[in-house]
Amino acid sequence: MNATLQNRLGVKELESKVVSATEAAKLITNGAVVGMSGFTRAGDAKVVPMALVERAKNEDFKIDVYTGASLGPEVDKFLAEAGAIRKRGPFQGDAGIRNMINAGDIMYVDAHLSHNAELVRQGIIGPIEYLIVEAVAITEDGLIIPTNSVGNSPIFAQYAENIIIELNVSHPEALIGIHDIYVPKEQGSEREPIPMTDASQRLGEIGIRVDLDKIKAIVISEEPDAPSLIVPPDEETQTMANILLDFFRDEIKAGRLTKQLMPLQSGVGSVANAVLDGFADSEFEDLVVASEVLQDAVFNLIDAGKVKFAAATSITLTEELQKKVYGNLEAYADKICLRPQEISNHPELIRRLGLISINTALELDIYGNVNSTHVSGTRMMNGIGGSGDFARNARLGIFVTKSYAKGGAISSIVPMVSHVDHTEHDVDVIVTEQGIADLRGLAPKERVGLIIENCAHPDFKEQLWDYYNRAFEATGGHQTPHLLEEALSWHVNLAKNKTMKL
Amino acid sequence: MNATLQNRLGVKELESKVVSATEAAKLITNGAVVGMSGFTRAGDAKVVPMALVERAKNEDFKIDVYTGASLGPEVDKFLAEAGAIRKRGPFQGDAGIRNMINAGDIMYVDAHLSHNAELVRQGIIGPIEYLIVEAVAITEDGLIIPTNSVGNSPIFAQYAENIIIELNVSHPEALIGIHDIYVPKEQGSEREPIPMTDASQRLGEIGIRVDLDKIKAIVISEEPDAPSLIVPPDEETQTMANILLDFFRDEIKAGRLTKQLMPLQSGVGSVANAVLDGFADSEFEDLVVASEVLQDAVFNLIDAGKVKFAAATSITLTEELQKKVYGNLEAYADKICLRPQEISNHPELIRRLGLISINTALELDIYGNVNSTHVSGTRMMNGIGGSGDFARNARLGIFVTKSYAKGGAISSIVPMVSHVDHTEHDVDVIVTEQGIADLRGLAPKERVGLIIENCAHPDFKEQLWDYYNRAFEATGGHQTPHLLEEALSWHVNLAKNKTMKL
Repeated sequence: MNATLQNRLGVKELESKVVSATEAAKLITNGAVVGMSGFTRAGDAKVVPMALVERAKNEDFKIDVYTGASLGPEVDKFLAEAGAIRKRGPFQGDAGIRNMINAGDIMYVDAHLSHNAELVRQGIIGPIEYLIVEAVAITEDGLIIPTNSVGNSPIFAQYAENIIIELNVSHPEALIGIHDIYVPKEQGSEREPIPMTDASQRLGEIGIRVDLDKIKAIVISEEPDAPSLIVPPDEETQTMANILLDFFRDEIKAGRLTKQLMPLQSGVGSVANAVLDGFADSEFEDLVVASEVLQDAVFNLIDAGKVKFAAATSITLTEELQKKVYGNLEAYADKICLRPQEISNHPELIRRLGLISINTALELDIYGNVNSTHVSGTRMMNGIGGSGDFARNARLGIFVTKSYAKGGAISSIVPMVSHVDHTEHDVDVIVTEQGIADLRGLAPKERVGLIIENCAHPDFKEQLWDYYNRAFEATGGHQTPHLLEEALSWHVNLAKNKTMKL
Repeated sequence: MNATLQNRLGVKELESKVVSATEAAKLITNGAVVGMSGFTRAGDAKVVPMALVERAKNEDFKIDVYTGASLGPEVDKFLAEAGAIRKRGPFQGDAGIRNMINAGDIMYVDAHLSHNAELVRQGIIGPIEYLIVEAVAITEDGLIIPTNSVGNSPIFAQYAENIIIELNVSHPEALIGIHDIYVPKEQGSEREPIPMTDASQRLGEIGIRVDLDKIKAIVISEEPDAPSLIVPPDEETQTMANILLDFFRDEIKAGRLTKQLMPLQSGVGSVANAVLDGFADSEFEDLVVASEVLQDAVFNLIDAGKVKFAAATSITLTEELQKKVYGNLEAYADKICLRPQEISNHPELIRRLGLISINTALELDIYGNVNSTHVSGTRMMNGIGGSGDFARNARLGIFVTKSYAKGGAISSIVPMVSHVDHTEHDVDVIVTEQGIADLRGLAPKERVGLIIENCAHPDFKEQLWDYYNRAFEATGGHQTPHLLEEALSWHVNLAKNKTMKL
């Protein structure tokens, strides 16, 4: 064993388990349920899944794959295209697998990310034959130290019959110590309150404690994570960020927030990143991030002294930031923390800590229902992810989207969404590049004007008002006026004429 | 003061506040936001609201009314018909006010029942000029003891500028001691975990502690609660109850539940009541109820030794059971507990305790989305109530409905629900009189066959399959196949031809 490896593999008896990826991949039974590490392209197992791809090319081999969230782009794509996936959950973000999901070739179970752990405990997901988990080290006392995401690995490790570890030596040893692994006990009287009253508190151990007998193979890897592909903010995402910052200022004036705001959760993507970037030159201070994913902006804000602590279940960075952060991880060690997604997304903590939650909508309707997942009601994009965990329980559930798509052919604001992921009861505030609609405390009919006037694209305002006015008339003012014959006609028009414009 | 009243009014200085309902009603300003006690016809303020009705008949008087949940039938109806309500939340169950809501005359804010308290803290609901709360007593140390519901009264009492108490001497003094009033602090580092690991634990005081200076009037009342109008089970509700009991037996066999099950929540209504009644002659034992409302069946099960503890935010009983229970309340004192709805419905506790949640659907679709509130997508029935609090966070989220309505003209299972209250991510199990569909761990396309074959009425099965097969074909097998031109056509057909049958 070389020197690097010695630092990484602290349990001498496990040295005999070191095998090639191909050997490890042979252990998994055709038809098995397999858990994998990985959350938004971060910390995913890489070399063993690629060996599974090779296996599936040569023999009849199909498994159910459950992860934290999305894997690196190639892994899901290649596994899917090799026919190796029967069922996939709870999230994916890759065009290759998405096409097969929408061709009926792969069953996809889209689920709230905080729910998986309970489903594993109950055996609804399972029995899990193998967990394949990327690790930066196995400590002397037998803790598996994940790399730059935690995801569902702790609960998978607890319930899986066997474990394969990808010991990835390309991740810096300085990652050891940034994880905080706390796993709630079984539901019922055994389970205690999660003892966190501040997002910066540590509750558990620095790694995943497992029965070492479960470890059947260790594969050495040097594959780096796929870097985040975040798009730099354009003028419109910048406008949305500015609108949100002004909204927070108004909330402070109204006495509902302070300059420290509340712990911030923001979904993956450029709007969320732009909002966070906007804090850099602002009057806000001592911010706390309590999110799923830490993107570039969070580290810039730590550098700028604006963010005092940031917790999540994953770190996903662009190539440039990755170099910077990984080269100087010690400087961030006491300011960041990676937790299981059951904890980062737990309703108990989201409600208690009073999170401000910012997530992206695919489309939304004039009454405030949000579609996050299905293009024109039928075609899965990525999945609901943690947006439901956060929006339902947050102090402020904010959804952002550009008011239009496809060069103006599509209005992101429609009479009725073609699929509902977030109901009118869970959507507090809507932001587009046009403006903001604060829906809190309003009845459906009170929301319509705000959404159309403040958030819709000018090209579609008249058409939206026309629908609403006729629906109001036809129903005589029902709680939620609709013309059911027409409610989805904008999507039908889009399919037929490539535009929602009449 | 007479002898009874002396026992009820423990703070001598408050005797001067005793006035008539008419006098009390004069205190409230036109345009004010008013909180009222009351949850599912239980514990609602009665005589002061009726005095407000008289006032509204004679002068320009309109207020925003927030309660726990539904009031006694006359109060909402008469307030609405007198034009006294501008805005109403978070739940109602009365045909009189419902008609005005659906005529556009009253703005109705339908909300998750656990969310109100946070909205009050943030001032989104408010400023609350008055709380009108029915009480069985004010103790010597100044605690207001609610009657047979708690609802939102504790949080209203904390934030309201003034309080009017309806001291209702028709409620037995034995109610004193059954309440457990615990109110979480502000969100953020002040707020602690709710220290409950067993549904029978008591966390707080036996009454609502208030600043006594806020009490501006006390009105003596003898108005009894409107009795619950629960319909006795018919053959079909009995079948549904039996199906559910068998499902629980299967879960025990599968090792996912024990004979004690998990704490049970059941919505208001005859199916829920029939399910609970079914436990009486069963092998289940040491059951715990952790619900919103305790109906007749719960007390029968306590008598039968099957339920060892029952907690909720309200007790609503038929006339017969009310006599029996109220006549012997001491016997139940250590077996029941009434809490604020923020606690009975709190996501933190629902997830931690692992509740089994049973709620009623208005309609559901072939992919498992549930509509609980809107008739044909536009017309409000009662509201979402606590069903979202429970279903999202429960260990088992079960929805029940008969498979048909209006003598067979309506199928409760449709291609696409006309309004979504519970998304596919929150619906675990569906039960109709036809059978059961266990959707846990399944992708949308895997759910279709179970829902149609096990739960749909035979008259509609072929029509549902025909829709699904054509949708699958047209989309090429998308994640959630739909024909958007047709998805809501069953409801359109119903409106035009009074049937969903083709």
